[in-house]
Amino acid sequence: MNRIPVEEYARIIRDLLASLGERPAELSPIAMAAGRVTAEEVRSPIDLPTFRNSQMDGFAVRAADVSDAPVTLPLVGEIAAGAIDPEPLRPGTAVAIMTGAPVPSGADAVVPVEDTRRVGGGIEIQRGRAVGEFVREAGSDLPRGAALLPAGRRLAPRHLAALAAANLSEVAVRSRVRVAVISTGDELVAPGNPLGSGRLPDANGIALASAAADLGAEVVALELVGDEPGRLARVLDQAVARGAEFVVTSGGISMGTHEPVRQLLEPLGATVGTVDMQPGGPQAHGRYRDVPVVCFPGNPVSSQLSFALFLAPLLREIAGMPPAVRAARPLAAALTSTPGRRQFLRGRLTADGAVQTVAGPGSHLVAALAAADVLIDVPADVAALPTGASVATVEL
Amino acid sequence: MNRIPVEEYARIIRDLLASLGERPAELSPIAMAAGRVTAEEVRSPIDLPTFRNSQMDGFAVRAADVSDAPVTLPLVGEIAAGAIDPEPLRPGTAVAIMTGAPVPSGADAVVPVEDTRRVGGGIEIQRGRAVGEFVREAGSDLPRGAALLPAGRRLAPRHLAALAAANLSEVAVRSRVRVAVISTGDELVAPGNPLGSGRLPDANGIALASAAADLGAEVVALELVGDEPGRLARVLDQAVARGAEFVVTSGGISMGTHEPVRQLLEPLGATVGTVDMQPGGPQAHGRYRDVPVVCFPGNPVSSQLSFALFLAPLLREIAGMPPAVRAARPLAAALTSTPGRRQFLRGRLTADGAVQTVAGPGSHLVAALAAADVLIDVPADVAALPTGASVATVEL
Repeated sequence: MNRIPVEEYARIIRDLLASLGERPAELSPIAMAAGRVTAEEVRSPIDLPTFRNSQMDGFAVRAADVSDAPVTLPLVGEIAAGAIDPEPLRPGTAVAIMTGAPVPSGADAVVPVEDTRRVGGGIEIQRGRAVGEFVREAGSDLPRGAALLPAGRRLAPRHLAALAAANLSEVAVRSRVRVAVISTGDELVAPGNPLGSGRLPDANGIALASAAADLGAEVVALELVGDEPGRLARVLDQAVARGAEFVVTSGGISMGTHEPVRQLLEPLGATVGTVDMQPGGPQAHGRYRDVPVVCFPGNPVSSQLSFALFLAPLLREIAGMPPAVRAARPLAAALTSTPGRRQFLRGRLTADGAVQTVAGPGSHLVAALAAADVLIDVPADVAALPTGASVATVEL
Repeated sequence: MNRIPVEEYARIIRDLLASLGERPAELSPIAMAAGRVTAEEVRSPIDLPTFRNSQMDGFAVRAADVSDAPVTLPLVGEIAAGAIDPEPLRPGTAVAIMTGAPVPSGADAVVPVEDTRRVGGGIEIQRGRAVGEFVREAGSDLPRGAALLPAGRRLAPRHLAALAAANLSEVAVRSRVRVAVISTGDELVAPGNPLGSGRLPDANGIALASAAADLGAEVVALELVGDEPGRLARVLDQAVARGAEFVVTSGGISMGTHEPVRQLLEPLGATVGTVDMQPGGPQAHGRYRDVPVVCFPGNPVSSQLSFALFLAPLLREIAGMPPAVRAARPLAAALTSTPGRRQFLRGRLTADGAVQTVAGPGSHLVAALAAADVLIDVPADVAALPTGASVATVEL
């Protein structure tokens, strides 16, 4: 059987899921919008700052009145932060002003408190200031109508702060991708249940669901089915009814006699094949009632690697996240690889940025994967690499 | 007034919050544990894999029976994944076996299907295999009782998968840090409300609350109070009643006459001072009814920088997250800085890893902060730096 290169299969899956890229917008309260992604450019409805205000605790003056400092001006009052419509400043006077307080009309500079001294009922200005000094003009950060955030920005706290400062209490964000996750296999039980002989806890459900949620998706169904294709069909019907935009399955795509995913979907036109990678070679994809279904192998390490290679890049893009870090790193210890297949070995980073393998290449090593920081991408023709050799790594 | 160096003030705040480091453990269902942090080392209660199973689709045999391959053996049945207690394999026979299916006693190797051919009622084995080949021994990933995850591990999907594979449905995690966030100032209104003259939307509440939540904290109160110290005291009482382990306030610590945080807390022993940084110089800290209170200035940029410098490192540590990335980067464009104070300018990264400032140094530039990727740390004695100069940056 021809083995499909990893990059080609990633393109096939990306094409299958092309419709996910067109995200409808929905409004989110800013308090709930952390990690969501702007659906469109956001413009500020107000000037930032909203009104002309003082950058310092000090005294609002006319710059012309203090050009010959030192000079003493009569002090005519105080303007606190939060003051409303302060009286215009009469020429030849000064008014105490707090940081952030509105600068009165007539004033065009602020003298910081440290350059002044109280003298009776007046204030001695010890150093002159130019027009505009320590005055924040309205709109000097961002004028009303200008772009505050671009489309596609993943909202971090500083972006939410900017939205709040612009007096926006909600923001148009991309809808979350709705995904259904289905584990298959008669041998699987939900974690925490008694394990009969030959029984295994299902690790794929939580692995794939939490990985999807981590990248901004909404998991609309998380199901564990046995080996019966009819039961799988009913669970897929439910997922479609819940609005799943795509489905990820694990298991049931081998050549055996109990392969519910293959048995249900291959007659409906699904493609079953082998990708040039280990773990994770067997792969399938198709549609069920027009909804894309991406079918990973049942082994937990294989399915997690498949997610990292075939789904994570697209979900990250939709979530406005940067791609996983790829870097060439030196090997901290020699490694061996199974030649004939491209290997994705699990690696741990050392303090100085080198990498070494964690345990062996087996696809059953879920504990070893949990201890890994990166995947090490070893070409198919390599059987061994010495300490210090440069290897391609992908962050987990 | 003496200006406290940034690093010294960070130590002061860390000492104030030292009790946060002792996190009680609590049990979380693994489905809710993404992003939580293991409170203790987790040991696997079972062997991983749980039972001896096949690494390939193929035929379970005695290695001794196939050492003179090619050889044809009678085929005595099939073992599917999920099979229970398969019959022992009789010497001189082979049994078909699926990946993951239990290897019967008596068998000690698996021959992959691609090295075989059906011949009548038997199977021709074309290549011999050594004892143990393609057999995953029970416990070969991790033996029962061995450490699956260390204490302090932030739980990513691959860790949850390992817990599930070990048949654990819950995990002991560190309790979340409980924080109360209080914005002060008569001039502030909740975002989305009409802005009267001199009124500003509160950006600090969401900025500090979402930043804390982003780093794993639980925000038990998020309040906006005016300039009245008595009202602040009542809100602090509520926060204490809700179990806040510390409080972050913004605003109200200047030298003015409407400074509720200062007016309430200074008589209770709070320290008010100035840190050698801009924006964000004015800082205060103390305790209210024994609960630590960290008091940031009211300007949104100042308070966000203060959070990044004085709270984020500790919260990241508690959340099992790596420190924010600090890197020396070349300037993509010359910059000017206000000498006399250490400046934290907002910078944007260029495609090639250089950095340039976003807008000016003003502490009112919330839109500019939203457009930034990093802070540029400019020493107090620097007034200008040329293109290409190396600057210290901290990732936002």
